[in-house]
Amino acid sequence: MEHRIRNSFLRSRVMSADEAQEWIRDGMTVGVSGFTRCGDVKAVPRALVNNIRKTGDLRRIHLYSGASLGEADSWLSSNHLVDRRSPYQSDPETRKSINRGEIRYIEQHLSHTAESFRDGNVGPIDLAIVEAVAITEDGGIIPTTSVGNSPLFVQQAKQVIVEINLSMPESLIGIHDIYLPERRPFRSPIDIRQVDDLIGYHYIPCDPEKIIGIVITDEPDSPSRMIPPDEETQQMAGYILELLEHEVRHGRLTDKLAPLQSGVGSVANAVFSGLEQSPFNQLEIYTEVMQDSVFHLFDSGKVAFASGCSFSLSQRMRDHVLSSLPQYRNQIVLRPQEISNHPEVIRRLGVIAMNAALEIDIYGNVNSTHVLGTHMMNGIGGSGDFARNAGLTIFVTKSTAKNGKVSSIVPFVSHVDHTEHDVDILVTEQGIADLRGLSPRERAKVIIENLSHPFYKDALRDYFQRASVQGGHTPHLLEEALSWHRQFKEAGDMRKLEPSVL
Amino acid sequence: MEHRIRNSFLRSRVMSADEAQEWIRDGMTVGVSGFTRCGDVKAVPRALVNNIRKTGDLRRIHLYSGASLGEADSWLSSNHLVDRRSPYQSDPETRKSINRGEIRYIEQHLSHTAESFRDGNVGPIDLAIVEAVAITEDGGIIPTTSVGNSPLFVQQAKQVIVEINLSMPESLIGIHDIYLPERRPFRSPIDIRQVDDLIGYHYIPCDPEKIIGIVITDEPDSPSRMIPPDEETQQMAGYILELLEHEVRHGRLTDKLAPLQSGVGSVANAVFSGLEQSPFNQLEIYTEVMQDSVFHLFDSGKVAFASGCSFSLSQRMRDHVLSSLPQYRNQIVLRPQEISNHPEVIRRLGVIAMNAALEIDIYGNVNSTHVLGTHMMNGIGGSGDFARNAGLTIFVTKSTAKNGKVSSIVPFVSHVDHTEHDVDILVTEQGIADLRGLSPRERAKVIIENLSHPFYKDALRDYFQRASVQGGHTPHLLEEALSWHRQFKEAGDMRKLEPSVL
Repeated sequence: MEHRIRNSFLRSRVMSADEAQEWIRDGMTVGVSGFTRCGDVKAVPRALVNNIRKTGDLRRIHLYSGASLGEADSWLSSNHLVDRRSPYQSDPETRKSINRGEIRYIEQHLSHTAESFRDGNVGPIDLAIVEAVAITEDGGIIPTTSVGNSPLFVQQAKQVIVEINLSMPESLIGIHDIYLPERRPFRSPIDIRQVDDLIGYHYIPCDPEKIIGIVITDEPDSPSRMIPPDEETQQMAGYILELLEHEVRHGRLTDKLAPLQSGVGSVANAVFSGLEQSPFNQLEIYTEVMQDSVFHLFDSGKVAFASGCSFSLSQRMRDHVLSSLPQYRNQIVLRPQEISNHPEVIRRLGVIAMNAALEIDIYGNVNSTHVLGTHMMNGIGGSGDFARNAGLTIFVTKSTAKNGKVSSIVPFVSHVDHTEHDVDILVTEQGIADLRGLSPRERAKVIIENLSHPFYKDALRDYFQRASVQGGHTPHLLEEALSWHRQFKEAGDMRKLEPSVL
Repeated sequence: MEHRIRNSFLRSRVMSADEAQEWIRDGMTVGVSGFTRCGDVKAVPRALVNNIRKTGDLRRIHLYSGASLGEADSWLSSNHLVDRRSPYQSDPETRKSINRGEIRYIEQHLSHTAESFRDGNVGPIDLAIVEAVAITEDGGIIPTTSVGNSPLFVQQAKQVIVEINLSMPESLIGIHDIYLPERRPFRSPIDIRQVDDLIGYHYIPCDPEKIIGIVITDEPDSPSRMIPPDEETQQMAGYILELLEHEVRHGRLTDKLAPLQSGVGSVANAVFSGLEQSPFNQLEIYTEVMQDSVFHLFDSGKVAFASGCSFSLSQRMRDHVLSSLPQYRNQIVLRPQEISNHPEVIRRLGVIAMNAALEIDIYGNVNSTHVLGTHMMNGIGGSGDFARNAGLTIFVTKSTAKNGKVSSIVPFVSHVDHTEHDVDILVTEQGIADLRGLSPRERAKVIIENLSHPFYKDALRDYFQRASVQGGHTPHLLEEALSWHRQFKEAGDMRKLEPSVL
């Protein structure tokens, strides 16, 4: 324990999770560690839930995190303990509560959350609860498998509870680079010029007096829920790899490419797998989340360095990575999400950004979050931070969903997360659309012809043709724009479009 | 002339506008100076139009600028000389051609255009035509009343034509700060930490060999088309000033506020006028465009420094400013639009951004560009650069348009330029809505109650109430979402909403 809690005074603050959960009061704003189910707090949320089940003493909190938590999101939501939730979640129970209007969910660009607390637009934070490998002599908190918003939460919170997770090896110490921008108006540039530039501490600075409790746990992270690639995701990855080769041939990229970002998902994983056999070398990664494929690329010698703010690994890869950290030590860094997703750095590096869309309209607007324009899936996450600022912005989606009953290419998206201005390249299993330098009507043609499923292509052409006759920079038929969604809602199948539409 | 063309070799390149226009060939990509009708090229476009009228020799070009040109946009569009146009325009003739689908218009975030040329995503630029006060010994081009994208165009173009405008006083020399970010992947931070930091040259570096022609003109800029404030814009300005005082009281801002940005428009002008009587002091401005009100604030001693990329002045104020430049010399700077609008700088400074909306939906999404979702007004301009990255983002619109026939607050915007994630504060003459930290359903309530016109309030409440019953994070009725726009299109009046809607 002396290794794990190096400040002798703080060893007296060790307590049970049940004791720790008593610090949580009804109505508190609580900031917790956790990003893509990694490095999240585990023992205290469970103890809170157990206590409430036992005592019926309902304490509802405003819960802020890095991104999605593991089981804690599910426990807290299904026991009605969450009043507000921000900035991201991907939990089925939480999703249901959000869509019933029970949980007030504020999804945010993941780089924005820290600024909004720092500026006082939300908050203050009453309590931070963060998972750690260890606490330094000075109270510094060494995070585990994600950094997320923990540095900001610890800095801003009145009180801090630390979960020391013994299942996290001490070899994690040194892979974090903790830097927080100053409060404005006196702020310096964020001096990351290359993906491997280190600018901060390897721990989160914290006044030991603020640490009111330390809970010892040994529970591993929840493994990622990665869906294995299928034929269609392989095809999409193939188009992206061809595009990258095309960019190199035209001198827009070198064979080192540019730092790569990928959202969580099987297409991104398939692209990274494809890179193993590619002519590219000395690749760099500047992303939010490092998935299994990043480590496969390391093992095949293709990647020089990877920067992220969290892992998201299968159980098998997690065990491998955590036991082999010394081998990766000089090639990976975990940063706060404000830095991994910072517009300043993403733009300076000219990142290649790959993220998943739920649906795309014929002019290139992207919906990443809302089913039928109303029901939240997960949240916008970091996709906007990257899409707006990247050197090359790619969105991917299969051309249909629900066994063909839904076309992912629609006349008019039912919700906009990324506007036409923030999208360069779109990919489905049908093909790729390069929108750079195109006007809306030109974009409509390549999107319909290259991306849509054959079953829906004629209907899309027909919509666009009839809309174009009515004129406008971005032609639409207002009476039909959302009719595809309406049709799905009413008949459970977009293929049963009304005669006027099909 | 020796003062104006200090490189003696280049004096031999002086030619008539008619000779200069012969360099323009059919299909060329041409980058021209000009931003909000200031510092735009004047003589060569007019000579091109005259030549074509005379000879019938139609040469259609891809026209890139800083932002809106003066008369040149109108001449070129109405004579069918523009094939593509980017990144912004505000000309009635050009707008008509765009909406007929004749001109292929690619509106862009104004900070993005330079990057897309630099990366090779569009271009190359065949010819740059820029207005200048003078040319230095080394060929350096000193811009006039706007900088816009001229430095990038001059850097990237194969050939350059300069219009030396003798109506522009030599006292303009020294007010520009020309800095272009390096081509990636080796780029330094943009080292602006305070609005008055100067980081570049006072001229656009240019190899004299590239300057193939110099045309002497003496035509002043077109004056701005500012609409004078009315009672409603004064009310809106009043709400914003109250908000700023509120922020100071709560310690989120000091009485210096934060650097101010305002889009072109009468509300922003009214806010700035209101600041003359405010308790704030030593104000700073970090914006695209300096309008009349900026100089009124200087004259009342309220502003310490103003940074922009262009002027946009009434004729009277223009005459005053151009004849009084030595007085303002140490308090103003004109930068390239890539720098005035750079996410890195806007975010670092924590700018307060005020921009105009065309319509707003009940969840806070903003349409700034498309009438009825189809017809382009001007373009997104720099509003997105500021809205996404500012410390405080404000959008303003009157609650109705067309004498009440159109509600600017609608269930569902017909086009999205700025998503709910990029909007903090909304203002109409009815009131102000502070959306910070609110979930979509909470936002809907304050937007409807605080912002909508009394005539439409019940219909909006009814829509939201019925949609909420159907559920979802962002409740909507797909069949009615666009019905208000449809109604206006069919009946010319949203007030004639169908019984199912009203």
